[in-house]
Parts: sequence; structure tokens; C-alpha cells
Amino acid sequence: MFETAELGRRTSKEEYKTLEPFLRTGVLTVQYELRDADFPVVLVIAGTDRLGCSDLMNLLHEWMDARYLEASVFEAPSDEELERPRFWRYWRALPAKGRVGIFHREWTTRAIVDRVKGNLDEAGLDQRLRHIEGFERALADDGALVLKFWLHLPEKALARRLEEAENGSGKSWEITKEDRLVLRHYPRVQSVAEQVLRRTSVGGALWNVVESADWRYRNVAVAQTLIQTLTRRLAEPPKLRIHPPGPAPREPNPLTVLDHVDLTKTIDDEAYEKKLKRYWGKLAKLGRKSHQRGLSAVVAFEGWDAAGKGGAIRRLTKPLDAARYRVVPIVTPSDEEGVHHYLWRFWRQLPRGGHWTIFDRSWYGRVLVERLEGFATEEEWRRAYAEINDFEEMIVHRGILLLKFWIHISPEEQLRRFKAREKVPFKKYKITTEDYRNRDRWNGYELAADEMVQRTSTDYARWHLVSGNDKRWARIQVLKTVCRELERAMD
Amino acid sequence: MFETAELGRRTSKEEYKTLEPFLRTGVLTVQYELRDADFPVVLVIAGTDRLGCSDLMNLLHEWMDARYLEASVFEAPSDEELERPRFWRYWRALPAKGRVGIFHREWTTRAIVDRVKGNLDEAGLDQRLRHIEGFERALADDGALVLKFWLHLPEKALARRLEEAENGSGKSWEITKEDRLVLRHYPRVQSVAEQVLRRTSVGGALWNVVESADWRYRNVAVAQTLIQTLTRRLAEPPKLRIHPPGPAPREPNPLTVLDHVDLTKTIDDEAYEKKLKRYWGKLAKLGRKSHQRGLSAVVAFEGWDAAGKGGAIRRLTKPLDAARYRVVPIVTPSDEEGVHHYLWRFWRQLPRGGHWTIFDRSWYGRVLVERLEGFATEEEWRRAYAEINDFEEMIVHRGILLLKFWIHISPEEQLRRFKAREKVPFKKYKITTEDYRNRDRWNGYELAADEMVQRTSTDYARWHLVSGNDKRWARIQVLKTVCRELERAMD
Repeated sequence: MFETAELGRRTSKEEYKTLEPFLRTGVLTVQYELRDADFPVVLVIAGTDRLGCSDLMNLLHEWMDARYLEASVFEAPSDEELERPRFWRYWRALPAKGRVGIFHREWTTRAIVDRVKGNLDEAGLDQRLRHIEGFERALADDGALVLKFWLHLPEKALARRLEEAENGSGKSWEITKEDRLVLRHYPRVQSVAEQVLRRTSVGGALWNVVESADWRYRNVAVAQTLIQTLTRRLAEPPKLRIHPPGPAPREPNPLTVLDHVDLTKTIDDEAYEKKLKRYWGKLAKLGRKSHQRGLSAVVAFEGWDAAGKGGAIRRLTKPLDAARYRVVPIVTPSDEEGVHHYLWRFWRQLPRGGHWTIFDRSWYGRVLVERLEGFATEEEWRRAYAEINDFEEMIVHRGILLLKFWIHISPEEQLRRFKAREKVPFKKYKITTEDYRNRDRWNGYELAADEMVQRTSTDYARWHLVSGNDKRWARIQVLKTVCRELERAMD
Repeated sequence: MFETAELGRRTSKEEYKTLEPFLRTGVLTVQYELRDADFPVVLVIAGTDRLGCSDLMNLLHEWMDARYLEASVFEAPSDEELERPRFWRYWRALPAKGRVGIFHREWTTRAIVDRVKGNLDEAGLDQRLRHIEGFERALADDGALVLKFWLHLPEKALARRLEEAENGSGKSWEITKEDRLVLRHYPRVQSVAEQVLRRTSVGGALWNVVESADWRYRNVAVAQTLIQTLTRRLAEPPKLRIHPPGPAPREPNPLTVLDHVDLTKTIDDEAYEKKLKRYWGKLAKLGRKSHQRGLSAVVAFEGWDAAGKGGAIRRLTKPLDAARYRVVPIVTPSDEEGVHHYLWRFWRQLPRGGHWTIFDRSWYGRVLVERLEGFATEEEWRRAYAEINDFEEMIVHRGILLLKFWIHISPEEQLRRFKAREKVPFKKYKITTEDYRNRDRWNGYELAADEMVQRTSTDYARWHLVSGNDKRWARIQVLKTVCRELERAMD
């Protein structure tokens, strides 16, 4: 893989002098054109030539307009970062549409370093690489231009570079322990790097290996690739975003997983009050314990309109310490959220250690309302299943408890509740004509929910389908499940 | 101050039972009405009755809609918080318009604890209280409803409360070391608390001292005050936001501080190149050193259109490590920024330890463009001077280097540059008809800039007025100043 980057290519001083003005104008022009475009650029700068990476980042800041450029260099994670899934720090640094984000010492570099240092075994590396692939694919699929450069230095050149920096050029401060480590274990680093680069060179996020021994050649090569790739991408006609209305409901409705939910379940007053008190006592203790242990939880509620999500959430939070949880209603995204990947708004809400985030509707909107209403294209909602599974795997992998509830009711029960709400002045605000319109799409939503459960009920994050025609039954089921899963998590 | 909260007031069980449904409906109703209002509620819950505070927060979460409520409890700051000014963690937790933010163990409590524990002397406390006053006043002036409750327990009641929690009620886990400390040093705590509460009871942010020995009385008192205050506020006609065009330029123009800037300064090519290189070398070293020491910097650039801010910023960043600085252009606020205090967007951009944020235009827009164009009312821009001074004092107080540059040019020079830009295809995008319109307001802007410098050039953050008719002269001045101030800061 690196042989093609050891050909001794050079750009002469004269040639560079001729090319430089064109390259400068070129990168600046594409950057300005990008500002009106509907996608961001995720620019990864990595490689054995760490000093070269640094120089290259500085060069890009000089050539481009630094006001629309954000470089993120990932050193030791902060404690706020450590409390979240590994990729949280990358998600929070992602550039908005129209902007360029430079990433250095990022996810790939971390994987290589961790493997070389022995912090990751083969299986751990494999899982990490799957996460990287999923992350980059999600960005690229969403339209981001993911452009990755690997600056390669042959062993001898690296040794020379470090020696020069150490002695001659007054740059000895730039050399880190890790640079020396790379040199000392050069063959091993190369072999791990090759493995990692091969695995993470997937369509839409290919690596560009650049021969870095001659800095002029390196600058020219990177700038040219950047200009060409971005120009080509900017010239593409914007994707036709046809928003077909969701799939026509098939008649008669086939049996869905929701049909297996036994909607006849009920609980009488006495048993309800008794169980409520019991679970509240239990949950109060478990919640406290989870806080002390730094265990976080993410709880997502989905279900039909008027299924009783709000009531279930209120019963769930009642015994919890208000200082430790936050209920996040998912409504229209803000404009900052709108210029990022659709999962970005959920990533930014992940709780700190020992805290809970409870989502009233969630990322599953992508494969439910957005699918049905045509806000997401078929391509978009189809690939969302895998993206969501990856997202949830990372949450669970960090040791965060993830719980997903679908509260199920029958169409008849829903109608009864709508009518009842209209009579209570105080609850009227909850009912709009849209709610009635959604009812007409019941079959479509049912099929979408069925597919959602099938595709996203994983062994690490399975769906809890709750029978909701009796609200009180549903609330007890939610409490019971949360207590059970908390106990299991703290065992 | 606390005598009126030791009267032994109680609410009987029966009375509470009668009142509760009305209070619940009341707080929920005002909360829903708030959702469409143009201001946030900052709800502070503090006091010697810490356990009561906790119960009260839980109660509010139960009675209100938790989805539009955010409780923040401030324990030991994270490392990301420690690297910013003390109030950064409070600013980042501020609720948006239409929402309620509950703050517990917040700025006031911290001040009392720090003073009692001896971490603050009288002078330190005094400064802290000034910051608190400034912070709360800024929020209230901006329209936030700042509602502060102090739950008071007489010494005996506190002793009893702790004893009960420890033995009877199975709540012993709730008791912290600090609770015991409060009890042990009760008279001292009370006297410091009284001093702090008195100082921070300023118009728009008065304390409500609540007798907390009887929990029913406490709940009723707090809920009633909350309902009444919010109802009254919601009933106020929205403030007439008359946006007068800025002050008419007086003719002939009086002498302004800008007139003292000697615009004849120039530098020849040779000297320029020589000095540029010298300062770049110096700055490279100083930047590195500042990073190693964790010294952050905030640099703000203001000045006329086409004054050369961009060019000066590029020359300033050239020797810096791209991984350590970010250039933030100040344009139209995002919608998330728009529903917060106007300083919120600047607070959120304050750099981590060892990093720099360079603002291309800044918070001074409030007293320049917003004043002149009438985007801010006279009341708003007038009070902005004090708000800005407080903001900057907190930055400096944290040990962050703050530098402010006004690059000055003559109107003739500006016109020359506009014309020149129009001829360069690549720079055309920089000139709009608005730029020409702004020229007509030169006198107004000049007076506004003059007043800005007068009112915000403080001993901790003075303005650097830079002669800019010769761009190269200006660049060298900026470099020279930054080097000098960095050296001074690291001495």
C-alpha cells in the first residue's frame, strides 16, 4: 500500500514557485464556493509524517479563509468526553454544511496508536474499525465530502526528519515521545497502519496516500487533490430529493410484530397503586446507586400519538432526582441542528456520567414520521437502520444503559383518547388536525414500526413493546423494565 | 433578614390537599404560556435547607412539564469548565426563551461556601458579588425573569432535619459533609448568607426568603410566588422595541479619540519584511510557550469595513499552530443564539486552556452596528458597555489574555480600497451596496466608536487603536502588541 509513496517524487523549487499561486487561488475558490453548498468537508490529515501534518494544517490555514475552517486535534480526552461514547468528541467537532473541518490525531490515528501500544487486541481493533467505517459511511452518505490524506514517510526519511528537527532547525520542541515510538517500531506501525487504512478505505471515504518526503511535492499533491475532488463534487447536480409519500398501506394489513402485543392487558386500581409504590421505592434506590457509580442512561420513548408516552415518562421520573435527568422532547431541529447530520442533535444530548437523558420521541423519527411524510428519501431512511444500530452500539459500548420503549395502543383506543382530550380544556392544546390526519396513515405507520422493530431490535438494544390500551398497565411495565435493566447493569 | 422566615408558619394537611390541585394547574399553565413568550425563566433554588431544595426541584418537575424544564446542579467543575471563566458553566446552562432553567448550588451558594470555608477573603467575596450582580442584572435587563428562592431553616430545625434523615427516614445517603458543616458553623453561615443575599438582592433579581421548616408551607409559598410573578410578567405588554435609526451625526464632527490616531504612519517594504519575519519568529515561540503553559487568548478585531482586519488576522495567525487557534467571524446569529442573551454566543466560543479564539468583529457589534442600525434599542446599547466590561473582566480574571484592536483608516482610504476591490474579480464578493451605504454613516459610526473606546477601555482590557491607512504598518503594530502582551502575561 505504501510502495507507491516511496517513489522519491519531488517538486522542484522553480516548479513550486510557478504552481503556488494557482494552488492558493484554487483552494480558496473552492472553499468560497463550498460556502453555498449543501454539504460539509471532513478533511482528515494523518500519517507517519506527523510534523508534515502539522505543517500542512498551517499551510491550509494560510491559503484558505481561516474563518470557515476549523481544525480539531484530538489529544487526551477531557473528562466530559470520557463520560461519553468514544466518537462523541468527533461528532461534536463536525463542521456544518458549507464549512471545512480538519481532523488530526483522529479516530484512525487513535486506532493505530492503540493497537501498536497494545491497548487494543485484534478483536478490539476489529470492532473499532467497524465503528470507524460506520461513522465515515454515515457522514459520506449524508453528503459530507470525507477526504482523507495519509502522509507517508519511509523509515529512513522519518529518522532523518526527526534528527533534523532535533538538531538543526530549532524544532526539537515539536518532537513527541510518540514520534520516537513510531520510529522505533516502524515496521509494526506500518503493518498496523496498512491494515487500518485498507479496512477504512471504503467508497466515499477513500484514503489518499501522499508521498511526504519532499514538502513541496506533498503540498502540491494535497492541494491538487483537494481542488479536484471539491470541484468535481461542487459540479455535481444537487441530488434530486424526491420526497414520495410513504409506502401505500397494503390492504388487508399483514400481521406485524405489533399485532403480537396483547392489548387486553389491564391492571386494577389497587394493584396499580401497590406496584407503583413498590417500583418507585426500588427505582429511587437504583437511580441513586447508578448516579454514585457514574452509570448513565439513555431512554427513548416512541409510540402512537396519545399512546401515553408523556404519562409514562412522568411516572418514570417521579422517584428520580431532578438534578440527574433531563427530558428532551424531539421537535423541529434548530438551524444549527439542521446543517448537521440528523443524528448530531442526539449525540449532543448524550448525558454526562451518572446522568440520564429521556427522549420523548427520538432518532427513530427518521424511519417513522420522516419516512411516512416523505421528509427523508427512501435511500435515507433505508440506510438509517444501520446508522441507528451503530449509534446505539457505541452508546452501549461506552457502558451507558440504553432502553427503547414502543408504547402500543389500538386505533380505537387512540380515537377514544383524542375525543376525551378535546373535552378537557387543559388538554385541548395536545390535539391538532394533524393528529387526525396521521390516523389515516395508521397502516403505513404500523408497517414502518414493524420494520423498525425488526431491523433495530439488537441483542445490545432490544425494543420493549408495551401494551398501552390500559395506561396504567403500560406505566407499570415501563417501571418494571427500567428497574430490571438497571439491576442487571449494576450486577 | 431571616427573622421573617422563623415565624413558624405552617400549612395544614387539609389546607394543602385543597390547594394542591390549584397550584399544580397554576404552575403548569404559566409554564405553557411561557412557551410562547419572549423571555426565559432563571429559577434559583438555594438555602440552608438543602434537602428541601432537592425535594422542591423534584416537586417542580412533577408539577410542570419536564420537557421544557432544565435543572442544573453545579458540583465540582469539569476540566473543560475549569479552563474557562468561573461563570462559563452558568452561561452554558442558561435556558432559551420560553423555557425554565432551575439552578441549584449555583453562583450565590458557591460564594457563600467559598467564604465560609475560607477560600475567599472579604475582598475576594466582594469581587465575586460584583460579578454575580453583573451577571444577574445582565440577564434581567435582557428580559429574563430571574426568580430566586432561599429556603431558610432555623438552626434547631436544621439539626432536627439532619437527624431525621440520618435515622428515621432512610435518607441518610442524602446527607453530605457540607450539610454537617453548615450545621456546625450555623451562625457563621447565616451571617455570610445574609451579607451575600443582601448584596445580590438587586432590582429584577430579588431574593424570596421562604420559611422551610414545614414542607407544605414551603411548597405552597414557592408555587404561589412562581405563579404570581410569572402571571404578572406574562401580562405585561411586550416591550415596545422602537428601533430609532442611530444618532444623527452632528456636524461639524467633533474631535473623537480616533482623530488622535496618526494616519500618516507608513513603513517601507524592506523594514516591513524584516519586522514581519522578526515578529513571526518571536510569536511562534511565544505561541508555543503559551500553549505549554495552558495560557489562552481571546483577540477581538474591530474597525471600518476594508480596514484590513482580515489581512491583519492572517499575518497574526501565520506563525501560530493551526491546531491551537480558531478564527470566528461574527455574522448573523443562529436561531439558538438568537433565543439567548446577546453575549451567549461569545461565551460559548471562549477557548480551552492553551488555545486562542480570534474574533473577526465581536461583541462590540452591540454598540456599533446594532446601535447605528437600530437593531438594539438605546436602552440596550447603553447598558451594553457595563455588560461588556463585566464580561471582559471575567475573562481576564480567569487568566486569559484579552486583546482588542480597532484598526483605523480614513474615509478617503476606505473609498480607495472599495474601488480597488471592485477591480479584482476575486475580491469583488467583499463589496456590496451595503458597504457604500455604511459609508454615508461614517460620522455616526465614528461617534459610536469614540464612545465605545471611552467606555470600554479599562485597565484590564484596554483598546489598541491601530493606524491602518498603511496596511503593512497596521499588521506590524498588531504583531508587536500581541508579542508584547504575551510576554508580559508570561513573565
